[in-house]
Amino acid sequence: MAPTNLTTGQDVRLASRDSTFQHPTPGLAPHHLQANLIILPSSHASDFRLLCRRNPVPCPLLAESASPGDYQNLKSHIPGVTGEQIAKDLDLRRDAPRYMVYQDGEAVESERGCLDVEKSWDSNDHIAFLIGCSFSFESALIEAGLGVSNITHGKNVPMYQTTLRLNDAGRFQNRTYVVSMRPYELGQIEAVKEVTRPFELTHGEPIAWGWKAVKDLGIKDITNPEYGDKPVCMNGEPFTEESGEVPVFWGCGVTPQDAVLGKAVEGVVLGHLPGHMLVLDLKEEDVFK
Amino acid sequence: MAPTNLTTGQDVRLASRDSTFQHPTPGLAPHHLQANLIILPSSHASDFRLLCRRNPVPCPLLAESASPGDYQNLKSHIPGVTGEQIAKDLDLRRDAPRYMVYQDGEAVESERGCLDVEKSWDSNDHIAFLIGCSFSFESALIEAGLGVSNITHGKNVPMYQTTLRLNDAGRFQNRTYVVSMRPYELGQIEAVKEVTRPFELTHGEPIAWGWKAVKDLGIKDITNPEYGDKPVCMNGEPFTEESGEVPVFWGCGVTPQDAVLGKAVEGVVLGHLPGHMLVLDLKEEDVFK
Repeated sequence: MAPTNLTTGQDVRLASRDSTFQHPTPGLAPHHLQANLIILPSSHASDFRLLCRRNPVPCPLLAESASPGDYQNLKSHIPGVTGEQIAKDLDLRRDAPRYMVYQDGEAVESERGCLDVEKSWDSNDHIAFLIGCSFSFESALIEAGLGVSNITHGKNVPMYQTTLRLNDAGRFQNRTYVVSMRPYELGQIEAVKEVTRPFELTHGEPIAWGWKAVKDLGIKDITNPEYGDKPVCMNGEPFTEESGEVPVFWGCGVTPQDAVLGKAVEGVVLGHLPGHMLVLDLKEEDVFK
Repeated sequence: MAPTNLTTGQDVRLASRDSTFQHPTPGLAPHHLQANLIILPSSHASDFRLLCRRNPVPCPLLAESASPGDYQNLKSHIPGVTGEQIAKDLDLRRDAPRYMVYQDGEAVESERGCLDVEKSWDSNDHIAFLIGCSFSFESALIEAGLGVSNITHGKNVPMYQTTLRLNDAGRFQNRTYVVSMRPYELGQIEAVKEVTRPFELTHGEPIAWGWKAVKDLGIKDITNPEYGDKPVCMNGEPFTEESGEVPVFWGCGVTPQDAVLGKAVEGVVLGHLPGHMLVLDLKEEDVFK
């Protein structure tokens, strides 16, 4: 469950930094943007930026390290917003609740990840990238009375590997979307689209919805997501094809983390543990109408 | 074959305007950008802009009518470039060699299209959108010694309908990529990628290549493209799985034209006939390094 004393981005970052908070971040610090973290060797940076520009729905690039090795200062990719406004007093090696470490494209950590990446961070070379996160529009869904079932029931959002191709970019070839899923009633879907559409920097409106989409996206088993918790309905029951709600899918910021796995990536890559985001100072009202 | 006297964008536009030129534009006015045209009722404009922002690889938005109904002046979407620099002395109703007309999402014209859309243009309401075209990087491929088989053999590029989903945007739901295809030898593919990668406003590097990609993209029959001419190898022979070259696929600017067909679109939509582009004053050197 979301601790109610963590109401700002800085609250969550400081509690993560000293490891008093180690959990998923959905529902924390309402109206503050949350970001996916992906930390790459500088030699991979230009291909990665291109990957983001060519796939802005799953990979909306918000900011990056001000220079290689810098874990404190950000260069903004959001027009009209400075790196300082996105987040200040940062330690990108410690400020997410949990991290993953990859060596030459293979996970080094267990699936629960680790609490910081201080030892793995290369202060001469690593560049951190911040990617928008769909948690940012969840407050809006809740305020519109549409609800978010996993938040109501204190769970991480379910995330699925799909077969939907990303647009290739440099060394990042043949990669596919990861999607997040939230169940809604059929009659709510138009409203869900409307509410999330303006959040362009955090995946915006759904990319697909309904049971046919599960097949089209090549999702193996809707009841067993590859990341996050198993899906639940609004009433807390397990979500299945019989439960009366339908799945709604958004581009997910785990996509770039998934995309930098495998043979094309050399060296040490770091990222947040899915669902355990970097929470920013930037608020929704600063970037969305 | 490309007439050699049409060396600038304005040459092609004026010859199209007086109907002395009525053919596909690959190879014309080398180093000038070519654009796909899609002309929509103003009520569809904001959804269409969102479609482009969410799908920049097949739908790179270069410019639009300066105001609803304006067929002479452009508002640029390219940072640092004005509408006047993109093309001046325009008549968007006549300056493409051939057009298509759609009523409520259904084609009105035969598959050869028509020579202008003066009568169909609504001077109070229609907004023209210019989308980047992969013909823009063909000169670069030729100069790099890689060749472009359809240009060598005087044919239009083959274009295929795929099952690869676009990211939904407003009323534009469940739409799919159209791709252009050029055959290359396996050993040339890395160079083909390198040469086309910088052309980000005109689809950039390939989205996929090889025979597995034909299946992954859901292309029905590589020898029978849905748009353009049948594919030929570098030696002019028909292109088949036995011919030793492999297919390389790029996002194609026919995608948005295809995306505005069907039930979601009301009223009169106009576009160029695939392959018969609007050629611009803007040159590659103005926008690509």
